[in-house]
Amino acid sequence: IDQKAQGEAEERNGQLTKPPGALGRLEDMAIWYAGWRGNPRPEINAPQVIVFAGNHGVTAQGVSAFPAEVTEQMVLNFQHGGAAINQLSKAAGASLDVHALSLDTPTADFTQGPAMSEEEVVVALATGWDAVDEKADLLVVGEMGIGNTTSAAAIAHALFGGAAEDWVGRGTGVDDAGLANKARVVREGVAANSGKEGLEVLRCLGGRELAAMAGAIARARSLRIPVILDGFICSAAAATLEAAVPGALDHAIAGHASAEAAHGAVLEKLGKAPVLQLNMRLGEASGAAVAINVLKAAVACHSGMATFAEAGVSDG
Amino acid sequence: IDQKAQGEAEERNGQLTKPPGALGRLEDMAIWYAGWRGNPRPEINAPQVIVFAGNHGVTAQGVSAFPAEVTEQMVLNFQHGGAAINQLSKAAGASLDVHALSLDTPTADFTQGPAMSEEEVVVALATGWDAVDEKADLLVVGEMGIGNTTSAAAIAHALFGGAAEDWVGRGTGVDDAGLANKARVVREGVAANSGKEGLEVLRCLGGRELAAMAGAIARARSLRIPVILDGFICSAAAATLEAAVPGALDHAIAGHASAEAAHGAVLEKLGKAPVLQLNMRLGEASGAAVAINVLKAAVACHSGMATFAEAGVSDG
Repeated sequence: IDQKAQGEAEERNGQLTKPPGALGRLEDMAIWYAGWRGNPRPEINAPQVIVFAGNHGVTAQGVSAFPAEVTEQMVLNFQHGGAAINQLSKAAGASLDVHALSLDTPTADFTQGPAMSEEEVVVALATGWDAVDEKADLLVVGEMGIGNTTSAAAIAHALFGGAAEDWVGRGTGVDDAGLANKARVVREGVAANSGKEGLEVLRCLGGRELAAMAGAIARARSLRIPVILDGFICSAAAATLEAAVPGALDHAIAGHASAEAAHGAVLEKLGKAPVLQLNMRLGEASGAAVAINVLKAAVACHSGMATFAEAGVSDG
Repeated sequence: IDQKAQGEAEERNGQLTKPPGALGRLEDMAIWYAGWRGNPRPEINAPQVIVFAGNHGVTAQGVSAFPAEVTEQMVLNFQHGGAAINQLSKAAGASLDVHALSLDTPTADFTQGPAMSEEEVVVALATGWDAVDEKADLLVVGEMGIGNTTSAAAIAHALFGGAAEDWVGRGTGVDDAGLANKARVVREGVAANSGKEGLEVLRCLGGRELAAMAGAIARARSLRIPVILDGFICSAAAATLEAAVPGALDHAIAGHASAEAAHGAVLEKLGKAPVLQLNMRLGEASGAAVAINVLKAAVACHSGMATFAEAGVSDG
């Protein structure tokens, strides 16, 4: 982060025509954004949304309410403009890119061993890395992948401990028996890939779209592009970066608290407070895309408002 | 509300390419909006933000951290485009109108009797009524008025009981002594205007900008224009409508939970869950203006997404 720009943004914030702190979280968001952009009076003109899609061998264990074909069907829906993220990207003034990662070759069932080989995870990470537009001034990443809440739960269990049951939720809508089955699969997956840390957890329990999200988030850091994290799956993928390099997510905020049960716990582990709590649980970057407009509002106030001196307003 | 349009919107929502309920609060918002607009597949193209400004005789009791001149100074700031609400309206694609109500004639100090005469409150209500653009498809109202958190606290105390201390907060930033003083003023104001109900509470303890907000919200109802309520002062003004006619706010949602202490309690009394919790406490319609983009996102998903049949996606 650019301490000088951040300090200048803080100073500017104190002079704007409002009582101190009256814009609440918007003030913090604008100052954080200014620091990462190295500009005390920044603008957001080119947000980029990227959705990565992948398939999961673990669906063989019956962990999802939807069949695996839906991953590819939804990719076509993204391409034809019919999904939620198409509408939300447009509403946020953001570009949308969709990358389908080897959908015909699902990852291996991680209850039997690593989900990906080293080569596979590197290709997925690089796909994410290369997908980031260098001209973007804000990045949101999301995913589509039937079975991937199970993958995310396994990652969270491996990184943060506790019981498998602590990390599983209903995903796209499994029943109580499905939930118990997911916990079993997560437990077995972590047991079959024990003793892993950081990006090895991503390789062994993640999926291609999770690795791609991690690659994109890392690339955004190198380009000083701030990131808004989406829900449970995005946050779990991001958490492997933080596990590998503490502070690796300082350029990211949490866009929302998902209704997926364990998301709040992952955000707590990451020390990130969600901007929105709208009970969303769709993935596709949808929650973070809604949060883009909140960050835009924050930055618009910060950079567009008059100071007390400029406006001739008494400052109390 | 148009039950037929609402029912058709609910049916459409169930067919969209997402797991049931996965857009959370966005789904409820879109269906509610569709019902009030009488259109199962609506759009939001013309949101209107109106800020009303008024001055308060009760400032003579030393209830604000800012001098009363700031009301007029901020009106000029609104007119010159330098305030938060200017940036937020622009970010929401909304028009912004500002109405200053007799700033040279503050309301009477309500610790001594009614804040307004019947004629005064009627003029203020009519100003609000007439300010609503018949072509608007969404209304947000807000206020500027040094001293008006004290007025809002007095309204809440009169409508909802409890102790004066339950309803006062720090407003633009009073200290502990200031807070105790506000509680005294609220207690004395309610005692000096006892036995009032509904709009009489608005007349006796409100202010011109609060009455104008109530008038605009009522007018929006008659035009079937949905409303997003702003913070504590807006919600207190709106609560007098609900007290006068139960259900009078069914066309309104709560845009955000303000950091002003008693706002949450007022929303609870009104049975409204806030869309945003961003710790904002500025007024000016600022919190509701940020929520415009959330409602726009909800409606964009609802009306723009493909159905399972249209997209050829298996629906589980």
